[in-house]
Amino acid sequence: MAGNTFGDIFKVTTFGESHGEGIGCIIDGCPPNIDLSQQDIQIELDRRKPGQSSVTTPRKESDTVEILSGVFEGKTTGVPIALLIRNNNQKSKDYSAIKDLYRPGHADITFEHKYGIRDYRGGGRSSGRETACRVAAGAIAKKILIEHGITITAYTSQVGNIIGETIDLNTIESNPVRAADAEKAIEMKHLIEQLATEGDSIGGAVSLIINGLPMGLGDPVFDKFEAILSHALMSIGTIKGIEFGSGFNAVTMKGSEHNDSFESNNNQINTKTNHAGGTLGGITNGEPVQCRLAIKPPSSISKNQNTVTKDGKETTISVTGRHDPCICPRVVPVVESMSAITVLDMILKQKTIQ
Amino acid sequence: MAGNTFGDIFKVTTFGESHGEGIGCIIDGCPPNIDLSQQDIQIELDRRKPGQSSVTTPRKESDTVEILSGVFEGKTTGVPIALLIRNNNQKSKDYSAIKDLYRPGHADITFEHKYGIRDYRGGGRSSGRETACRVAAGAIAKKILIEHGITITAYTSQVGNIIGETIDLNTIESNPVRAADAEKAIEMKHLIEQLATEGDSIGGAVSLIINGLPMGLGDPVFDKFEAILSHALMSIGTIKGIEFGSGFNAVTMKGSEHNDSFESNNNQINTKTNHAGGTLGGITNGEPVQCRLAIKPPSSISKNQNTVTKDGKETTISVTGRHDPCICPRVVPVVESMSAITVLDMILKQKTIQ
Amino acid sequence: MAGNTFGDIFKVTTFGESHGEGIGCIIDGCPPNIDLSQQDIQIELDRRKPGQSSVTTPRKESDTVEILSGVFEGKTTGVPIALLIRNNNQKSKDYSAIKDLYRPGHADITFEHKYGIRDYRGGGRSSGRETACRVAAGAIAKKILIEHGITITAYTSQVGNIIGETIDLNTIESNPVRAADAEKAIEMKHLIEQLATEGDSIGGAVSLIINGLPMGLGDPVFDKFEAILSHALMSIGTIKGIEFGSGFNAVTMKGSEHNDSFESNNNQINTKTNHAGGTLGGITNGEPVQCRLAIKPPSSISKNQNTVTKDGKETTISVTGRHDPCICPRVVPVVESMSAITVLDMILKQKTIQ
Amino acid sequence: MAGNTFGDIFKVTTFGESHGEGIGCIIDGCPPNIDLSQQDIQIELDRRKPGQSSVTTPRKESDTVEILSGVFEGKTTGVPIALLIRNNNQKSKDYSAIKDLYRPGHADITFEHKYGIRDYRGGGRSSGRETACRVAAGAIAKKILIEHGITITAYTSQVGNIIGETIDLNTIESNPVRAADAEKAIEMKHLIEQLATEGDSIGGAVSLIINGLPMGLGDPVFDKFEAILSHALMSIGTIKGIEFGSGFNAVTMKGSEHNDSFESNNNQINTKTNHAGGTLGGITNGEPVQCRLAIKPPSSISKNQNTVTKDGKETTISVTGRHDPCICPRVVPVVESMSAITVLDMILKQKTIQ
Repeated sequence: MAGNTFGDIFKVTTFGESHGEGIGCIIDGCPPNIDLSQQDIQIELDRRKPGQSSVTTPRKESDTVEILSGVFEGKTTGVPIALLIRNNNQKSKDYSAIKDLYRPGHADITFEHKYGIRDYRGGGRSSGRETACRVAAGAIAKKILIEHGITITAYTSQVGNIIGETIDLNTIESNPVRAADAEKAIEMKHLIEQLATEGDSIGGAVSLIINGLPMGLGDPVFDKFEAILSHALMSIGTIKGIEFGSGFNAVTMKGSEHNDSFESNNNQINTKTNHAGGTLGGITNGEPVQCRLAIKPPSSISKNQNTVTKDGKETTISVTGRHDPCICPRVVPVVESMSAITVLDMILKQKTIQ
Repeated sequence: MAGNTFGDIFKVTTFGESHGEGIGCIIDGCPPNIDLSQQDIQIELDRRKPGQSSVTTPRKESDTVEILSGVFEGKTTGVPIALLIRNNNQKSKDYSAIKDLYRPGHADITFEHKYGIRDYRGGGRSSGRETACRVAAGAIAKKILIEHGITITAYTSQVGNIIGETIDLNTIESNPVRAADAEKAIEMKHLIEQLATEGDSIGGAVSLIINGLPMGLGDPVFDKFEAILSHALMSIGTIKGIEFGSGFNAVTMKGSEHNDSFESNNNQINTKTNHAGGTLGGITNGEPVQCRLAIKPPSSISKNQNTVTKDGKETTISVTGRHDPCICPRVVPVVESMSAITVLDMILKQKTIQ
Repeated sequence: MAGNTFGDIFKVTTFGESHGEGIGCIIDGCPPNIDLSQQDIQIELDRRKPGQSSVTTPRKESDTVEILSGVFEGKTTGVPIALLIRNNNQKSKDYSAIKDLYRPGHADITFEHKYGIRDYRGGGRSSGRETACRVAAGAIAKKILIEHGITITAYTSQVGNIIGETIDLNTIESNPVRAADAEKAIEMKHLIEQLATEGDSIGGAVSLIINGLPMGLGDPVFDKFEAILSHALMSIGTIKGIEFGSGFNAVTMKGSEHNDSFESNNNQINTKTNHAGGTLGGITNGEPVQCRLAIKPPSSISKNQNTVTKDGKETTISVTGRHDPCICPRVVPVVESMSAITVLDMILKQKTIQ
Repeated sequence: MAGNTFGDIFKVTTFGESHGEGIGCIIDGCPPNIDLSQQDIQIELDRRKPGQSSVTTPRKESDTVEILSGVFEGKTTGVPIALLIRNNNQKSKDYSAIKDLYRPGHADITFEHKYGIRDYRGGGRSSGRETACRVAAGAIAKKILIEHGITITAYTSQVGNIIGETIDLNTIESNPVRAADAEKAIEMKHLIEQLATEGDSIGGAVSLIINGLPMGLGDPVFDKFEAILSHALMSIGTIKGIEFGSGFNAVTMKGSEHNDSFESNNNQINTKTNHAGGTLGGITNGEPVQCRLAIKPPSSISKNQNTVTKDGKETTISVTGRHDPCICPRVVPVVESMSAITVLDMILKQKTIQ
């Protein structure tokens, strides 16, 4: 109800503010008898953590996860898995600069209005730090999916006007922007560094590809595969748009161009093209699910901006501190994690039908 | 779980196949003491029904709704409102042409695989006819929202390459494509008619604007306003992409361009621009919510297409019958309805906080 | 949220008031490919309907059910099954007698207070008539469970001071009180008839036995098997208490008496006794689930009772009309149905683990 | 779905095993701006903790709770409140005695069958230790309810054959059995001590009274007040039966005896008696809610019992260690907590109607 839980069967509930005691989550409904170690989760958290490279925030947060429950002798037991990440980096810094005014692009004003109270320290519950819990839960989902032959891969496909052209999934972890085009990645990196120097930030696009999905996931009406995945991904604060398959290009297409014809190969029915992006009528059709996400430029910039104080006086603000000039590289593991949680939940749901 | 319900408090559960006895829904959690008549619902159904104009399917379905429960002496009583629309148009036609093969772009193959059984008559549960129930439920939500000063308006903003330029919300219901640009509407109409003549179909874009929203709707983590609305809208079968505010344009923007500065006017705090599209941190900020939807070209075309039979033999198909050459005009009320259900549900949820 | 839905996977949502257009339900999540006819459902409704015998209300309601969706060529398809029972017996009688006062033992006053409006015709949504929908949905669940080797049987085990002694499940449908003790059934019948003559009513007990349950149903914490079944059964308006296994007798027992010892027979582990009533730690242990329910005397009696009008004036009331002097015979199929819905839902849930 | 969450709006999700790293919970949907300190929660945990008196287990567990999130400057903020209780008492003791056999009355066998794996250390997730999390969450609910004028009080009303007669709520915390009858409490205490000496245990009854409830809580169909409260309370492992108001006494009552007549006092409508136990048609009527619970004798006894090993060999077991000879005194705060969570959730739900 209050939107801190995602999933119906593989169900993730997160907690924590950026500068409280810690953040974490409970994963309920994880299948039993899965091998699981702290390291399985830590490896994905390390992909998301700050301070990885010159294009991410230099903030240092170790983000070390502790498994509190649900694992016995190295295996999941079917009961809730609770994960805790202590907030070690919360400095007792002076927040008076942002306590009484609203940072443009941030949730300060809406949060305060919604609840009548606001933990103003570093964004509180609205901080992007919350996504670490999604990555931790997603690490478990990804591990289980791999055993089902399903791989989920996201990558930076555009930064500002620089568009990735070639798609080599093996190169993604080799460059700091997590692009699938190694050459364009260099240009992207330079652009991000330049914006950082200017005290500004830049948007981008992240693409997602899910391979190995069985046919039959998703439900035909309100819980279509792409509806649920859109819910999952659009809940990442930085994402402003999502499109599947041909997406917004479908606007100018004819039915005869857009429809994916069927063909039969070795007793298996496939589509010749994949304009649909991996689903038909909201149900996976066995083709790769492909989608593309619009990532807005980070709101925390040191450039001066106009704003107002809580009591309505106009003023300016420069958001100092160590912030990401482009969030694409660090949003990639978050996108993968939310996708993994979504897909695993659907696989478990489908078991109730078959 | 099986995805036939939407909403947490104002909760809509739909049923029915295109060629069964009827379709309908139960609306649970509707506030009591609201004036409600059959006509309040019928008026919106008439906006969605087939046969309205030269740019929609000439199929005739009266889609007359009956209120079975939940209304007493012209007022809602707080108990479930059940609505029934009998299927009067289901012809005892011969479906053998589509019984044993898969129509490209349709859910035939995925549905059959998911459930191991398929009601092949006219798409069964996967038929767009199901959206009539959403419109019926949405009519009730819209009525309540208007009392809250909230108006939800969708319109066709693009058909093929023809893009609406001016935005005049008053002109929408005056042209058959439901465009907000009366002049472009004429071009759009011609393009659709031409495609129909060719036995083909065309995509488009629908834009949505929600005015009068209070600040504070939506939840900060998984159930952000745009996440839930994306879930709602991406569950409409024909929609392939969604973007809020600057949307995919944010990809090339800098933070200093994208951030909406705050200003203070007569003790009210507003943003000078609305790149965010009406939310901050997933919570409405009092500005209009704006989003844009990619509508794919309808899959049912009479042009010959390659496909395969259930037993894997390659063949061709021409989907005859009376189909929409562009679904934008008829998807407009569906978009409004799903938005209305979503917003009303959030308003009721917010009552639990305040 | 508003409590008109029961179940998580096999999910039943009911609608309708006693004197509106009709009552019915949507069953979502029913497994596909199950043989299902109108008659399968009607047969259980006939067990619940009024006018069956001298010990039930002489009211005549045919309660004919129509399947609106979800069944194709005699089989369920996995999509929602909608059922409708028209209200044919609603007389245009004068309700002014109960419009402005509160019947003792009825929900008139609480309903009016909760919603600020009340459909006073025959109890409206609070009428026992609503349980017909549960029986209709339960008929489907029972049919599926029988294929799993699970049988659910309820019977009248006590009426007033007359306690059934022998338990012969085959005799239940042969006597009008649905007792498992044919001899005591005669005494029970006479007692009920006597109370009816006096314009009064009498309480009783209904016992439930579920055979053939697999080990492993129910969840170890909040959703223990008996917690969910208690939710299901205590939601039947007439039930005031429930006990499992030794139940309230456990109050005076020692652990050494109450614990059920394990024994091993032909590689199967059983308990020698069944004080626990079929569960251990909230999870079924393969023994029969046994519970006993306290049924209150029906509130509608023609004897004069003290009450007050809506504006607080003291008065008396005699609830005329045709009412049940003891509800046990007709509550038996309702108890079975709610149990069947509960058990089937748990079986489907368990599939997500295994 | 997996039953580790309770509540719809005030939603509690628990985690943890008796001998893992810790136990805890996330409380989602707690209203913002409530004063809350660690001590508010600790005080209720101390009522539940072991080692309080001669009639409880002498086990020492400090059960110190830490608030990880959701509270800022002493007030709740509306976001999830996470609570953690470290397991400090888990001894690295040898569990081989119970690893390969099933303790009578415990969930060992059902748990292992359900999940195919079992954390055998001290009952794992099935341990009564889990209820500490419910008490922690309930402490918050109770605090909020007191501000609404609602008080929830449970007490031991029977131990074995010793039945409390007088009801003095002020004496409950003054005697170690938490009885409301100070004199009978002495007898109860002696009986429990005697059973402990014998290596045995004893059952009892706990009664619950909720005062100050507004009219209108609970929903008329599946989520009747007593249905939800039964779900809540029957989910406490040790409870085998529940009855409301006249409960099982209603079995032998006539309608003319059982119906509670209305009377009018100073413009307020009350019932003269309270056989219904505080509800009409599943909705609270403003009278006190009264119910009574059957508490089974604890299963862990040192007396020799027959059992079988995992591979089916018959053997005997004596459950050594420090166990409660009667759980009534320690179940009292658990009953209050589950009731508080239930009632607060209903109050928040009711806000969506009014």
